[in-house]
Amino acid sequence: MTRVFNFSAGPAALPEPVLRQAAAEMLDWRGSGMSVMEMSHRGKEFVSIAERAEADLRELLAVPDDYAVLFLQGGATLQFSAVPLNLMPAGGSADYVDTGQWSGKAIKEAKRYGNVRVVASSKDRNYSYAPAQDTWQPIDPKAAYVHYTSNETIGGVEFHWVPEAGGVPLVADMSSHILAGPIDVSKYGVIYAGAQKNIGPAGLTLVIVRKDLLGRARGDTPTLLDYKVQTEAQSMSNTPPTYAIYIAGLVFEWLKEQGGLDAIAAHNRRKAALLYDLLDASAFYHSPVRREDRSLMNVPFTLADEGLDDAFLKGAKERGLVQLKGHRSVGGMRASIYNAMPIEGVQRLVDYMREFEKERA
Amino acid sequence: MTRVFNFSAGPAALPEPVLRQAAAEMLDWRGSGMSVMEMSHRGKEFVSIAERAEADLRELLAVPDDYAVLFLQGGATLQFSAVPLNLMPAGGSADYVDTGQWSGKAIKEAKRYGNVRVVASSKDRNYSYAPAQDTWQPIDPKAAYVHYTSNETIGGVEFHWVPEAGGVPLVADMSSHILAGPIDVSKYGVIYAGAQKNIGPAGLTLVIVRKDLLGRARGDTPTLLDYKVQTEAQSMSNTPPTYAIYIAGLVFEWLKEQGGLDAIAAHNRRKAALLYDLLDASAFYHSPVRREDRSLMNVPFTLADEGLDDAFLKGAKERGLVQLKGHRSVGGMRASIYNAMPIEGVQRLVDYMREFEKERA
Repeated sequence: MTRVFNFSAGPAALPEPVLRQAAAEMLDWRGSGMSVMEMSHRGKEFVSIAERAEADLRELLAVPDDYAVLFLQGGATLQFSAVPLNLMPAGGSADYVDTGQWSGKAIKEAKRYGNVRVVASSKDRNYSYAPAQDTWQPIDPKAAYVHYTSNETIGGVEFHWVPEAGGVPLVADMSSHILAGPIDVSKYGVIYAGAQKNIGPAGLTLVIVRKDLLGRARGDTPTLLDYKVQTEAQSMSNTPPTYAIYIAGLVFEWLKEQGGLDAIAAHNRRKAALLYDLLDASAFYHSPVRREDRSLMNVPFTLADEGLDDAFLKGAKERGLVQLKGHRSVGGMRASIYNAMPIEGVQRLVDYMREFEKERA
Repeated sequence: MTRVFNFSAGPAALPEPVLRQAAAEMLDWRGSGMSVMEMSHRGKEFVSIAERAEADLRELLAVPDDYAVLFLQGGATLQFSAVPLNLMPAGGSADYVDTGQWSGKAIKEAKRYGNVRVVASSKDRNYSYAPAQDTWQPIDPKAAYVHYTSNETIGGVEFHWVPEAGGVPLVADMSSHILAGPIDVSKYGVIYAGAQKNIGPAGLTLVIVRKDLLGRARGDTPTLLDYKVQTEAQSMSNTPPTYAIYIAGLVFEWLKEQGGLDAIAAHNRRKAALLYDLLDASAFYHSPVRREDRSLMNVPFTLADEGLDDAFLKGAKERGLVQLKGHRSVGGMRASIYNAMPIEGVQRLVDYMREFEKERA
């Protein structure tokens, strides 16, 4: 068996110890005589797994007690609907920040449910930066919420600061950088994230919601999307994605073993610096993103000659460096270096990039 | 490692060869150097897994070409909302058959979106039978659809015949007996099923929809719940539950190795007969379900003295026979004997039941 270094933007690499444990426990979870996949979600074995996962996540992110932690389904995309359905009254409005493809999709879906005001956008420079707060239109104090995408997976743009929403609930799609470092949950009304980048397998969605925002869902909200219903049912209004929750729990344990989110953030900064230092020192490679807004998780870059893209990808693959092709909508390359990517993988990529530049530049 | 015989109603036992293969491939799927969990859903490896799963399912169920097969999220419960949102126009109505807890939940959710007519019910005898078609009210020819629950997991009532809907699209929740035997898909407008009984892990939902029913979704339907959107995107409107689809695919391969659905149906009849023959021959055990409507998958039964329930469950567990407690809403016992339950497990249960009766009756 040879494991590759997998730079996929998601579903993405998982920590190898997590996969080893999952394999070892596949037929018999800790003497239960069954796989976690086979457990009733209401049995004491699985309830212990779910409770441990939630407790570890709360500890890692220091989630305050007045927030519910929900393990749901449907990905961030279903939250694009669930957020307005839960928070925006019929005929109401919400303020959105437009920083790329994912915020664009959230905006498009929200418009189906009410008025959307785009209070800031980086479209003018091809979504290559995070608009500074002093360039935003003032937040509408009557807005149901302010929504932003705190890390744009495709564009590689990250907010390294928390917007000020002036008392309006702040909602963030953190899919591609949640758990990459500490966050101040208390500044948010709702945080949501698809699991398949930094949490666990696809098919699990994390929602963290301040409890005073529960109970506002519109009458036409599918019951399963109602945050209040899921909070009261402890995410078990129906059968949850049990195996995905189990794997996420193993990831949370692994993160704690790494020293928690301060430690993993330092590790992530070292990994990203390896790549960005090379990009900035080279005339052959180029980062399209404004320096202060560069994502620590998703690093898009281009080669001086896009005619060399295929050769670059081929050589990378021969060295076990895979899934480096940029998103089909933007082209170029993208190295996603989530928590589970070891520094060795980034070093191998950087070494290869230097070698390729020397040969081809 | 000692594997138990797991009679859980769902999430439920999976075929052991499937779990063994999943464990063996956990860190490196067939030389890819990565786990299926780590694969981009748009990469050629995962696309091959998803295409194979769909092709095998279509072969097993003989799904006609004019039906779309969707692998979605949210369980049957989210379909309770998705069905009316996709098929019932605003101000429209639908006919429902009320045969127990699951159809009751579907009815309750549908009422939030339009008029629901209950055209047949078995409530009069505690949901212990499937109402014969000649006792139904006539189907409303203007109904958007007719909905029934073809196997009630809690009550253990199964329709062994397909209702006649008189040209109105027939919609069935088949969660707890899909793939237990052949079905005539062409008689249905929509078939849906949560995966966690006979398909694979929780977090995956199968929807089979006749293509002429696509494109009717109401304006307020969350985009991800729109069957047309998901059909056009081949279930990848957003990231699908990739690992659950992979496991389901392994289950489909296993079913084909067992000889397909005719063979598994014969096997299931043998398994169920072992239990029902004992229940009928005994004065100590009792099946609450009318003989001709008994489920081959979920076998509820009671003991003559419910004061013995705990002792029965304790003795069963000591013999590796677990999850036999009936649903909290009805009490008693329930043995769920899905495809993955080997006949040996049922035989062991029957032997134990005889032994227990002899000692305690």
